[in-house]
Amino acid sequence: MDRVSVITSRDNEKLKLVRKLSARRWRDKLGLFVAEGEDLVGAARGVGIEPVELLVAGENVEPELLAEVSSLAHAPRVVGVFRRADLQRGPLPERGLVLWRVADPGNVGTLVRAADAFGAYVSLSDGCADPAGPKALRAAMGSTFRVALPEFSIPEGAVALLAHGAPPLTEVSGAVFVLGAERDGLPAEVIERCSATATIPLPGDAESLNVAMAGTIALYEAVRSGHGRGLSPD
Amino acid sequence: MDRVSVITSRDNEKLKLVRKLSARRWRDKLGLFVAEGEDLVGAARGVGIEPVELLVAGENVEPELLAEVSSLAHAPRVVGVFRRADLQRGPLPERGLVLWRVADPGNVGTLVRAADAFGAYVSLSDGCADPAGPKALRAAMGSTFRVALPEFSIPEGAVALLAHGAPPLTEVSGAVFVLGAERDGLPAEVIERCSATATIPLPGDAESLNVAMAGTIALYEAVRSGHGRGLSPD
Repeated sequence: MDRVSVITSRDNEKLKLVRKLSARRWRDKLGLFVAEGEDLVGAARGVGIEPVELLVAGENVEPELLAEVSSLAHAPRVVGVFRRADLQRGPLPERGLVLWRVADPGNVGTLVRAADAFGAYVSLSDGCADPAGPKALRAAMGSTFRVALPEFSIPEGAVALLAHGAPPLTEVSGAVFVLGAERDGLPAEVIERCSATATIPLPGDAESLNVAMAGTIALYEAVRSGHGRGLSPD
Repeated sequence: MDRVSVITSRDNEKLKLVRKLSARRWRDKLGLFVAEGEDLVGAARGVGIEPVELLVAGENVEPELLAEVSSLAHAPRVVGVFRRADLQRGPLPERGLVLWRVADPGNVGTLVRAADAFGAYVSLSDGCADPAGPKALRAAMGSTFRVALPEFSIPEGAVALLAHGAPPLTEVSGAVFVLGAERDGLPAEVIERCSATATIPLPGDAESLNVAMAGTIALYEAVRSGHGRGLSPD
């Protein structure tokens, strides 16, 4: 193995790149993003996605310098720079979530994780949080590298999930669900492009579930009702 | 109406109290907690719970001083101090979540919100995040004032929810679910005290759902299968 040179200056180009990529603008411009920590970098490698740059504290970069560019409270040992184009593109599974302007990165990341768990894709509109941003990546716990993230598109048969007033989810058969952000929901022009609408029946008092909980339940229900004849107690 | 005196000093006792209550130690000691913002204070009042102190920016406290004691990025207009003993205590609904050492306040708050939506209670063990802490309160979006939060107890009929290997959730009938934290799950001595075990069947690749997603699905399933004979497509 070649001896690697250790980065000892915060003006190093690789560190500058990592700092830049904390901004979505630069992630979009360069088509790159940063995954911090061994769990995320390991999740990428687990599906054959290699970083274009890999910084390892104490190996090729001074730990203090890596800590400085990290978004984490506890500095990671490794930081990888990945190509967005290396993320999964298809073929799409039958199940999916289509997110309309879900701006909270924690919700986007949680839904990517749910999609991974339930074998689904996640399609994001403009105005959604970047799934490759630091908070969404963390919430997705590595699932971002395993889930197909196609361009925004509402397929034939998609079900618009509404907080109130639509037929109960259990009466609507669908595998792709369209969800809006918590406060604003889905606009009429998006609902019109869906084949059906559904609401999760709630016996309690909460105004609504958050979008991450609603999307998770929708995927659970799609799996349960699709595979469920042997599993269901009904 | 009496003229109120306006707090203009950060040494004011009420502001000191609010600062203290950011620490769980003080919340436990004094039996008080702080809810920030009109939504949370309004949620409390919506169920007849009045603050023991109410600070209103520009009315009885200088806005800058209120901003200083706030845990929020955007300073709230109102901050209320509430008595823990005023939170709901019973009667308990049939459905419930029993949380074992769920230390993440966002997860605890999200589950309180889910319990509100699905008409359930939440019982917390030692080692759980304080549901009256700032992050859990925010995640619960006001549900904390509406959900019964009894002492830790595993009732007859409780179902331990495990990440792997138990019978599928749809085959196990239960209304109270016991959940552990994501990494550690439930210890054997807790599982033994439950009447059954269940696992949420996952077709995908994710190691597990997080505890907030799992608890939400369990409550959804309890509602669906309990009320669901007319609703279910099976």
